Amino acid sequence: MASIPDETPPPKLWRNARLATMRPDLPGLGVVDAGAVLARDGSIVFAGPEAELPSDLVGDAETVDCEGRWITPGLIDCHTHLVWAGNRAKEFELRLEGASYEEVSKAGGGIVSSVRSLREASEDRLVAETLPRLDHLIAEGVTTVEVKSGYGLDLENEAKALRAARRLGAERPVKVRTTFLGAHALPPEASGDKAAFIDKVAREMLPAIAAEGLADAVDGFCEGIAFSPEEMALVFDAAKAAGLPVKLHADQLSDLGGAALAARYGALSADHLEYTSEAGAAAMAKAGTVAVMLPGAFYFIREKKVPPIEAFRKHGVAMAVATDCNPGTSPLTSLLLTMNMAATLFRMTVEECLLGVTRHAASALGLQGEAGTLEAGKSADLAIWDIESPAELVYRIGFNPLHARVWRGR
Amino acid sequence: MASIPDETPPPKLWRNARLATMRPDLPGLGVVDAGAVLARDGSIVFAGPEAELPSDLVGDAETVDCEGRWITPGLIDCHTHLVWAGNRAKEFELRLEGASYEEVSKAGGGIVSSVRSLREASEDRLVAETLPRLDHLIAEGVTTVEVKSGYGLDLENEAKALRAARRLGAERPVKVRTTFLGAHALPPEASGDKAAFIDKVAREMLPAIAAEGLADAVDGFCEGIAFSPEEMALVFDAAKAAGLPVKLHADQLSDLGGAALAARYGALSADHLEYTSEAGAAAMAKAGTVAVMLPGAFYFIREKKVPPIEAFRKHGVAMAVATDCNPGTSPLTSLLLTMNMAATLFRMTVEECLLGVTRHAASALGLQGEAGTLEAGKSADLAIWDIESPAELVYRIGFNPLHARVWRGR
Ligand SMILES: [Zn+2]
Ligand SMILES: [Zn+2]
Repeated sequence: MASIPDETPPPKLWRNARLATMRPDLPGLGVVDAGAVLARDGSIVFAGPEAELPSDLVGDAETVDCEGRWITPGLIDCHTHLVWAGNRAKEFELRLEGASYEEVSKAGGGIVSSVRSLREASEDRLVAETLPRLDHLIAEGVTTVEVKSGYGLDLENEAKALRAARRLGAERPVKVRTTFLGAHALPPEASGDKAAFIDKVAREMLPAIAAEGLADAVDGFCEGIAFSPEEMALVFDAAKAAGLPVKLHADQLSDLGGAALAARYGALSADHLEYTSEAGAAAMAKAGTVAVMLPGAFYFIREKKVPPIEAFRKHGVAMAVATDCNPGTSPLTSLLLTMNMAATLFRMTVEECLLGVTRHAASALGLQGEAGTLEAGKSADLAIWDIESPAELVYRIGFNPLHARVWRGR
Repeated sequence: MASIPDETPPPKLWRNARLATMRPDLPGLGVVDAGAVLARDGSIVFAGPEAELPSDLVGDAETVDCEGRWITPGLIDCHTHLVWAGNRAKEFELRLEGASYEEVSKAGGGIVSSVRSLREASEDRLVAETLPRLDHLIAEGVTTVEVKSGYGLDLENEAKALRAARRLGAERPVKVRTTFLGAHALPPEASGDKAAFIDKVAREMLPAIAAEGLADAVDGFCEGIAFSPEEMALVFDAAKAAGLPVKLHADQLSDLGGAALAARYGALSADHLEYTSEAGAAAMAKAGTVAVMLPGAFYFIREKKVPPIEAFRKHGVAMAVATDCNPGTSPLTSLLLTMNMAATLFRMTVEECLLGVTRHAASALGLQGEAGTLEAGKSADLAIWDIESPAELVYRIGFNPLHARVWRGR
C-alpha cells in the first residue's frame, strides 16, 4: 500500500448503489435503495436517491457503477491500543498450559512485558510492527482509527508511541485519532506509588504531550487493579486545563462508578462498562457520553458479565463497538468480527452493531461533524460491499466481503 | 485463482525454514529449527534438518529461501457444510431482535430455508456461491477440506450437492473429501415420519450415492431434534455394506450416547461432543475415533457446556478442530479463528489446536497416510507463515499471517 498522494482527488460519483447512510434523521440504517454518492475535494457533496442527484452537481465527475452493491460509511475503530512491540503469544500459550499469573509474570509476561518491549523499540520499529495490524483493519474498510498510548508510561516513551501513531496516518490512507493513556498502569519504576505516578501523569506528562499536539484526547484505566476514580479525576482535571476531551476505561471488572465519573467530566466515551450500574448509564445519557462496547476483550478474558445493554437502550445512550486491539486482552484486528461478537455475546442488534462502527463510533471520537454517515459535508470515506444485506456484515464470522474502500474521495 | 494445471510440478526445495512437522514420533509440534522441505512429483521426499538433506536428492530442484519463516503442513478443515445456497443473515437479525424460533420459522428461517434454497439452486450456482467461502479458507493455508451434504435431503439434491463439492476440488488447488449427510434433518415432505425417511436414506439414497462414487464417508446428526442412535445405526449399517467409513454429529445438545455409537462402528470421528460422557470418551479412545471440536457452533449458539477435553486427554483421544462452516449455526470461514476459539473457549493448548488442524484432522478424514504432517511420502501441502512462533497462529484473532501456500508441491 502506497503512502497518500497530496493532490486533491478529482470529483467522483458512485451510482447504482444501495446506501446505508446511517443518517440520524432517517430510521434504522438510513437505507436508500437506488442511491448515489458524489464526492468533490475529498468530501461528500451528495448522498441519496440517484433520481434526486442534481445533474449540475455531477459535472465531469468520474462515474463508478456499483452494480447494486451496498455502500456504508467507512468503518471507524474508535478504541485500539494498536501501537505496540513484540507479542504475547508465549504468555497465551503458558496460560493455556495452566500457568498461574505469577508464573506468567516470572516468565516475563503481563503488561510490563509490553512496557519493556515498547520502551526498547525505536519509533520506526513501532511503526513497522503496527502497520500489518493497521493494514488488516484497512482491508476491512476501516477509514478512521483511534490509537492509544499506555505502554510507555513515561514522557519519552508515551510521546514516542503517540508520534508513531500519528505517523500511521501519513503512511496509510486512514484518519488516526490519538489518545494519551498515561494512566494505564503503574510502571515498574514507580514502586507501587500510585499517587506519585498520577501526579507525574497529570502535572508533567499530560501538559507536555498536549503542548506538542500529540494527543486528541486523554484516557485512563479506572479499576481496582489500576487507578481509582479520585486518581482519574486528577488526570481529567489536567486534561480539561489542557483543553483535551476525555474518555475512560470504566467498570470493566467491577463497578467503581467509572461511567458516572466519565459523565461528570462530559467524556466523549466510557468504554468496556461490563459492571456499569443503571445510574451510571443514566448519567452517561445525560452527558451524551458514548458507551463503547469491547466484546473482543470480554471474549478473550472469558468475562461472564455482559454490559447493561438494556439500560443503555432504555436511557438512550449511544453505543459504539470497537476492537480494543491490544496484545494482552484483545489481540483482535477485525472490526467485522467484533460486530459479530457484539451481536453474539452482547445481543446487540444488527442495526446497533452497524451504527456502532460508524455514526456512534464517530461521536466517541468527537468526529460526528466529519465522519460516520453518508451526508453532504462529511469526509468521503466509503466502504463498498459484496453483500445482499447489511446484516451479512454482522452475521458472518471470519469473512471479508469488502469490494472497495474509498478514503477522502479516492 | 486459476484452476489446477495437470502437469507434474518441477522439484522444489524450501530451505532456511523453521518446521512444525507435526510428526507423531517427535514431541509436541515436532519442531525442526534449521529445516528444509524437498518436494518431487507433488510429494514430500525430505522434511527435516537442512544439514541432513542428502545433496543427491536435491538435484536441480528450484530453491526457495524461506528466510527463517515457519512451515507447517497445509491446514485441514475436517468438518464443513460448505456447499449451500443463499444465506441466513435475516434469521440472525430477527433472532437478535427477539424473534422466537416460531416467528423465525414463519419468516422462512431455519434449516428448511437452507433445504429450500439448495433444492432451488443449480449445481453451477452452488459451486459459484461456495467458492468465495472456500477461497477464504484457502487464503489461510487450508489445503484439504471436508464438505458434507445434508441440505438436499432427497437423492437428487444430495447428489447435486456432493457433485458440487467434488467440483470445488477441480476449480481450486485443494483436496476435497465429501461426506454424505442424508441423515441431517427430516425434510418437509417426510411429514414427521423419521422411520420412513431413515429407511429411504439407508436403503435408497446411500447405496445410490455410494455407487456413483460421490461420497468418501457417511455422517449423521444424532440428537433429540434429529435422529436417535437406533436410527443412526441403520444408516451406519448401510454405510458398512457400501464400504464407506462413518462419522457422527454426536452429543452436541444432550448425551444420547452418540460417541459410544460412533466408536462401536469404528467411526473416523465423532464431532461436537459437548455432552459426551467419560465412558463415551473411553470408547472413542479404544476405537481410535477422533474427537472433532467445533467451537464456532458452540460460540454461535452460546452453548455453555464445554466438551470433556480432560477426559479426551486422559483417555488419549486425538482431538481435531474444524470450522463446522454452515449457514445456521456456524457461518465461519476462518480456521485460524477457529483455533483461537478452541483455545479461548475450550482451553485447548496451542499444541492441541495446531495438531487439531493438521495431523489429527487428517486422521478424522482417514487421510493420515497422505496429509497432516511434514514427512517423506506425504503430499507436499505446506503453509508458510510470517510469524515468530507457531503460538501466534492460535493467539491472534482475525489476522492472517500466511506468507505462501503450497499444494502438491507447487
Ligand atoms: Zn482498551
Ligand atoms: Zn456439522
